[in-house]
Amino acid sequence: MNAFLQRLVGAVGRAAVVTAPADMAPHLQDWRGRYRGAALAVVRPASTDEVAAVVRICAEEGVPIVPQGGNTGLCGGATPLADGRSVVVSLSRMNRIRSVDADNAALCVEAGCTLAEVQAAASAVGRFFPLSLASEGSCQIGGNLSTNAGGVQVLRYGNARDLALGLEVVLPDGRVWDGLRALRKDNTGYDLKHLFIGAEGTLGIITAAVLKLFPAPDQSRIAWAAVPDAAAAVALLGRLREDCGDRITAFEIIGREALELVLRHIPGARPPLPDSGPWAVLIEAADRLRGGALEDAFDGALADAVAAGVARDVVVAGTLAQARALWSLRDNISEAQRIEGISIKHDISVPVSRIPAFLEQADAALRAVWPDVRIVAFGHIGDGNLHYNLSKSAAQDNPEFIASTPRVNAIVHDLVVRLGGSISAEHGLGQLKRDEIRRYKSAVELDMMMAVKRAFDPRGLMNPGKVIGFDKD
Amino acid sequence: MNAFLQRLVGAVGRAAVVTAPADMAPHLQDWRGRYRGAALAVVRPASTDEVAAVVRICAEEGVPIVPQGGNTGLCGGATPLADGRSVVVSLSRMNRIRSVDADNAALCVEAGCTLAEVQAAASAVGRFFPLSLASEGSCQIGGNLSTNAGGVQVLRYGNARDLALGLEVVLPDGRVWDGLRALRKDNTGYDLKHLFIGAEGTLGIITAAVLKLFPAPDQSRIAWAAVPDAAAAVALLGRLREDCGDRITAFEIIGREALELVLRHIPGARPPLPDSGPWAVLIEAADRLRGGALEDAFDGALADAVAAGVARDVVVAGTLAQARALWSLRDNISEAQRIEGISIKHDISVPVSRIPAFLEQADAALRAVWPDVRIVAFGHIGDGNLHYNLSKSAAQDNPEFIASTPRVNAIVHDLVVRLGGSISAEHGLGQLKRDEIRRYKSAVELDMMMAVKRAFDPRGLMNPGKVIGFDKD
Repeated sequence: MNAFLQRLVGAVGRAAVVTAPADMAPHLQDWRGRYRGAALAVVRPASTDEVAAVVRICAEEGVPIVPQGGNTGLCGGATPLADGRSVVVSLSRMNRIRSVDADNAALCVEAGCTLAEVQAAASAVGRFFPLSLASEGSCQIGGNLSTNAGGVQVLRYGNARDLALGLEVVLPDGRVWDGLRALRKDNTGYDLKHLFIGAEGTLGIITAAVLKLFPAPDQSRIAWAAVPDAAAAVALLGRLREDCGDRITAFEIIGREALELVLRHIPGARPPLPDSGPWAVLIEAADRLRGGALEDAFDGALADAVAAGVARDVVVAGTLAQARALWSLRDNISEAQRIEGISIKHDISVPVSRIPAFLEQADAALRAVWPDVRIVAFGHIGDGNLHYNLSKSAAQDNPEFIASTPRVNAIVHDLVVRLGGSISAEHGLGQLKRDEIRRYKSAVELDMMMAVKRAFDPRGLMNPGKVIGFDKD
Repeated sequence: MNAFLQRLVGAVGRAAVVTAPADMAPHLQDWRGRYRGAALAVVRPASTDEVAAVVRICAEEGVPIVPQGGNTGLCGGATPLADGRSVVVSLSRMNRIRSVDADNAALCVEAGCTLAEVQAAASAVGRFFPLSLASEGSCQIGGNLSTNAGGVQVLRYGNARDLALGLEVVLPDGRVWDGLRALRKDNTGYDLKHLFIGAEGTLGIITAAVLKLFPAPDQSRIAWAAVPDAAAAVALLGRLREDCGDRITAFEIIGREALELVLRHIPGARPPLPDSGPWAVLIEAADRLRGGALEDAFDGALADAVAAGVARDVVVAGTLAQARALWSLRDNISEAQRIEGISIKHDISVPVSRIPAFLEQADAALRAVWPDVRIVAFGHIGDGNLHYNLSKSAAQDNPEFIASTPRVNAIVHDLVVRLGGSISAEHGLGQLKRDEIRRYKSAVELDMMMAVKRAFDPRGLMNPGKVIGFDKD
């Protein structure tokens, strides 16, 4: 063990400095196996002071740091580069709920708590933490904040960013910023927490956070509606908001191909309607109101939408089991796609009003080049966020198609940007879109990001090679 | 007219460069007359390009810039310093609504639109822009964003910061950052807009913004409740959230002294209850739900609170006129105070759960020194934000008391910070708290703010002497 590793052992103890290849392996690649890296060690500090000690040592020795949470990211942001020069700092041992304050509707948690643990701590005091993702059992709140995670409740409650009141961050020089405020209002200068949220660990390591809680809904309605086209889906969302205000908590679109993949590959999946047609939407409304009238308003709005032709057919879940079955159709799309085979995936957003234009124009542009392209489109249309995934149905044709990823990306992403959208709505940039994003950001904005990076991490030791790279200036 | 002013005239036209003392005067002091400054000129650009041209000229000539919106701030943030070296850039001619997108629930407005104009543009398409302040007829949205304005709807909708989707900013070197995204989800690197929101013009000039809209409430209930103490007020908020979820949009506390000042000085003001006791709360609930049951849930929750002793007595407004009368009691507190005479004001926040402790401990600490101090306490208790204002009732004693402002501030602010609070909840720092804040921010946080300032405005030309000063490093 070299002198550097000895110093780390001195800071966090022998057991917390992992160097055995088998033990390091799960930390050196992402869970989908797309990115594989190398590292000097995986360090597992148990406290903010230990994180700070590790960062100080790395700063002194000029060793890059890759912060890692649950390692469930989709863009390789938590995977070290292949050069093997860095240390992975895993936050998983920092998993205490530090405090819960029901009257202030806030709780303070360490970065290594899983999202499910945070949700449970809120529930335990009769409150609700709305962030919800497929990986909530294993993703960690520090990672959720570092990537500004989205998910299915954004329509009503916002992204991870909107749920944070305060942060504790270990800065690249090892100093600790205690920004753990539990305040709804604090106008005393620059709001520094927003720099670290969504920065994917390139400006420091989030070690703890104060999060907002909400009144827990005590009633919900789940429906599946077939709509004639994407414009009708947007119109349906508008009608539901007219009748139900902002208690619409999820509004997910599912294209025909996406539903068919789920019905084909997921055991027990059943069609919710005899014919869902080209597009269906999964809708959730939730509320807390004594003697609440959610059911009447929601069901009435849907019936009116059918009468008006905005929806072709609707089923409302009458039992919890039916509600779960509807959600599982949506939740299993990614898994069904994985079983079907590889595809070219996009996580894009445009203004909600431009979703129909995007779908129409992207479809036309892609089919002009690949007439038999299979388009699996689904996602959080209420947020303007689509997962837009492309493949060839015939397995033998697909590798050739996958090889044309750059051309496909150019078509999709150019259109997205022309419509005022984003090429990474909720997954971040990581390694996956590090180069792609530089084609789309203005020079001014890249300069501004570089200026922030230099201000906080002038030596470029925090998560190098991620986000926009930062070394290409 | 000197060469510098000639250059400005070349950029924006003669009429837009104001140098006559009488025309400049309203721009050189704040509306309360607390701060008075001097300037080389007041420039009134009409477009982003003109703002950029002005900033470029000032950068080349090394002339500091003071951005100014409606000039309704309370901390002197928009008033130039007395040295007369700077140029005031008024955004008031940039007052176009650039676009409204009802389906995307967003609109794009220029910085000089008044808050009331923004609200009206949202209403015109059946949507709701929730930011609401006493000065909404004259304050401008650029100033609201630059100071991260709060107000009475924060409990439900958040501060100005939470309502912005995108910004356009002229940077200190005159370049324009087009960050006018109308997206609910965009995870492509650092969220730069949050740097400018709340920065009080020290990092650049906000020239336009994309703002979030909401479904417009179609029903509301307003109530006035007398509560035995501040702890009961917090408990009442908890009960209301249990029964009505987060449709409680305002929850304002009014101390006995505050109510008495309004009843004494404001013509037509009447006591809402025979005896409001030491503390009253003004509560607003709002909703949009067809066939909505807001009334039953809200009134039922209040009746139960009275039965449980959490509230002593309650009146619910039965007509719009009654609702307005209740709100006007709250809205006129500042005016009633102004009529009564000068006081030492505080705009503080603590976690909601610590409001009772703050009131009790601050009261005790102040009365220990000044047994006859008059405490006028009121504000947005639902956000943990109190306006806590102190004076002596006897007019002849008051000047002496006012002279002890530093000692009073130290008692109040030390306690606030000990309770995890903020010494400026919603008004910002400006000139008023520029020095005070340096006593309370950690060295790490001051360093971080300096690093951001240096990264964006290395020559310190943007609104010098505001926020933390920035020249004292």
